[in-house]
Amino acid sequence: MRKTPLFLITLLAAASVWGQPPADSQPAPTNVMGAQYPRVHADNRVTFQLKAPDAQKVQVSLAGRHDMTKGADGVWSVTTPPLVPGFHYYQLIVDGVSVNDPASHAFYGTSKDASGIEVPEKGVDYYSSKDVPHGEVRIRPYLSKITGLWRRSFVYTPPEYDDNPKARYPVLYLQHGSGEDETGWTFQGRANLILDNLIAAKKAVPMIIVMDNGYASRPGPAAPDAAVAGRGAAGGTSAFEDVIVKDLIPLIDSTYRTIADREHRAMAGLSMGGNQTCQVTMRNLDKFAYIGAFSGTMNGLSTEPLDPATAFIGMFKDGATLNKKVKLFWIGMGTAEPNPFPGAIGAFRAMLDKAGVRHVYFESPGTAHEWLTWRRDLNDFAPRLFR
Amino acid sequence: MRKTPLFLITLLAAASVWGQPPADSQPAPTNVMGAQYPRVHADNRVTFQLKAPDAQKVQVSLAGRHDMTKGADGVWSVTTPPLVPGFHYYQLIVDGVSVNDPASHAFYGTSKDASGIEVPEKGVDYYSSKDVPHGEVRIRPYLSKITGLWRRSFVYTPPEYDDNPKARYPVLYLQHGSGEDETGWTFQGRANLILDNLIAAKKAVPMIIVMDNGYASRPGPAAPDAAVAGRGAAGGTSAFEDVIVKDLIPLIDSTYRTIADREHRAMAGLSMGGNQTCQVTMRNLDKFAYIGAFSGTMNGLSTEPLDPATAFIGMFKDGATLNKKVKLFWIGMGTAEPNPFPGAIGAFRAMLDKAGVRHVYFESPGTAHEWLTWRRDLNDFAPRLFR
Repeated sequence: MRKTPLFLITLLAAASVWGQPPADSQPAPTNVMGAQYPRVHADNRVTFQLKAPDAQKVQVSLAGRHDMTKGADGVWSVTTPPLVPGFHYYQLIVDGVSVNDPASHAFYGTSKDASGIEVPEKGVDYYSSKDVPHGEVRIRPYLSKITGLWRRSFVYTPPEYDDNPKARYPVLYLQHGSGEDETGWTFQGRANLILDNLIAAKKAVPMIIVMDNGYASRPGPAAPDAAVAGRGAAGGTSAFEDVIVKDLIPLIDSTYRTIADREHRAMAGLSMGGNQTCQVTMRNLDKFAYIGAFSGTMNGLSTEPLDPATAFIGMFKDGATLNKKVKLFWIGMGTAEPNPFPGAIGAFRAMLDKAGVRHVYFESPGTAHEWLTWRRDLNDFAPRLFR
Repeated sequence: MRKTPLFLITLLAAASVWGQPPADSQPAPTNVMGAQYPRVHADNRVTFQLKAPDAQKVQVSLAGRHDMTKGADGVWSVTTPPLVPGFHYYQLIVDGVSVNDPASHAFYGTSKDASGIEVPEKGVDYYSSKDVPHGEVRIRPYLSKITGLWRRSFVYTPPEYDDNPKARYPVLYLQHGSGEDETGWTFQGRANLILDNLIAAKKAVPMIIVMDNGYASRPGPAAPDAAVAGRGAAGGTSAFEDVIVKDLIPLIDSTYRTIADREHRAMAGLSMGGNQTCQVTMRNLDKFAYIGAFSGTMNGLSTEPLDPATAFIGMFKDGATLNKKVKLFWIGMGTAEPNPFPGAIGAFRAMLDKAGVRHVYFESPGTAHEWLTWRRDLNDFAPRLFR
């Protein structure tokens, strides 16, 4: 009586692009349901495939460009050298056009929904889904008084949040990097899983994490940065501080059961978000007592020496006073980060040292300007908060 | 002291692909931040662009294929005929390869994270973000006892949920279609906004909506449907009923403040999800009293006449008894749906009529097998629940 259902037809159509997989490898965890490629080998080499019978040239762009070879069936393939574990954005280059791999999930980064691949990290499970109590990530829409536009926050609430309707929690504001958005720390960074695991192990106190979009501009003609970039008014960053201070903190403190004082409010961010974190927290020390700068500090990409007496209108020059106000100034970086990050972060740290500003410095071994660095950062940073 | 920050470099690189936009048009709401194309014209024509200097042929695949024309700057462009409003998946075809448009957000559908475009619907705002109280969509991970794998639900809680810590709510289980997943009803369907607006207007009672993944298989060798399709054990649908009944209902009733009886539990789904809804609810009438079949019924794609005495082991034959148990049997379809949907849904309805099973039938004018049909379905269906 029943014919082939629609979903089977769809599956059959999709199946034809997948060949027989090599035995020493597994589909990447970031593959779409059922996709057999990309496959990660035991030594972290990765094999990619794409069916493109009519294309002239196909490459994988991931830690360099890798030429793919066309098989008799029109399927192009390549196996890369071993990759660093963790999450990587990547693209396929088809006849010169940078496109997504249809077999991988997309993640907002590099200013678009780009393909991502997760290379499992052996013997490491602090960012894995484990059988511990899990919190939620709540998608919270709000109308910004600053931008005049609807925005959304991704808000992590800890596992016990709904079971303790009278308990109140400290809050970490946690920002993504350039070309990313409010989804990055959940889908690429796994901040929720990292906190679930830290809280279950009693290594971190239960906290709320607010992940918002670092891009925000006032209504009307685009600000200079946005205009230069060809973006609309929604694309700049000039109103971000006001969004955090005037929109978001009041929204979060009135919507969730927070402890609404500076001693229970932290901010951290990666790359552009680290720069923004330094600026927002240092200009609002009445609101924040914990600062985390992940692969990005207040001097942006500049590697020039900084004199605390004059840099940033002297806001770092009085180390003794800052040390009383700031309970934690945490700076992290991967040891494989490219220029200018080591120089820039080094110059900023040298300025803090010169001014006597206490700070924790953390290095992620062997990782570059990438999400595994920032997962490790969060895993070290979060346990130090609100103690 | 500061050089050009990283995010500006990224923006400047991206800006070069965007030309001067025509004045009678606006960037689509589904564009990534700052992208000027695709642009929707006042008459719902849409102009697409892609920079691809080395490609031989580029098309847009959206309600047919539209050849793009290459400009002197290597940017291909085309303006489509007027499109039906609402959400559409689409692809660019570059030298024969179906790829995403980097300027649009991606949405999981057609078994991958595919480009999507929203064409605004004039004078209609039931699925818009409005200045009314908003609920949340909560990303809830759980370990399935049935599949042995981690899964996740998207759980909508109504605006008042956290303000009334003793109130309990009815639950709608709401399923996506073939090649989609648990994200579809939020990002393509806007179920949360539809309910926010209905609840604010007092047209629907506050309810929880659970949106899960319709694909589920038991561990071990792949079930026949999964094996045929080349999918792994996670890709079939054979264990979905058990996931709903044995994993999900207990999880939801123990995690959220539900009213945990059949009179306060509904299920609906679209296309494949409509088929699944009929099967799960009819086999578990002790657990569900409300049924919604959106563009998909128990007979799948078959248009053959159904005799209630024998079809589906006779489970519809006793209309009088069913009418007492089922408080609402709701069936919807777009008037522009292609074959076999009108025939299949018609055959199913004829069987219900023959058996005397009461049902509501709703038609969405001018829409096909697409998300605007299902938004309208939910907007008609939800107000009828739990009355």
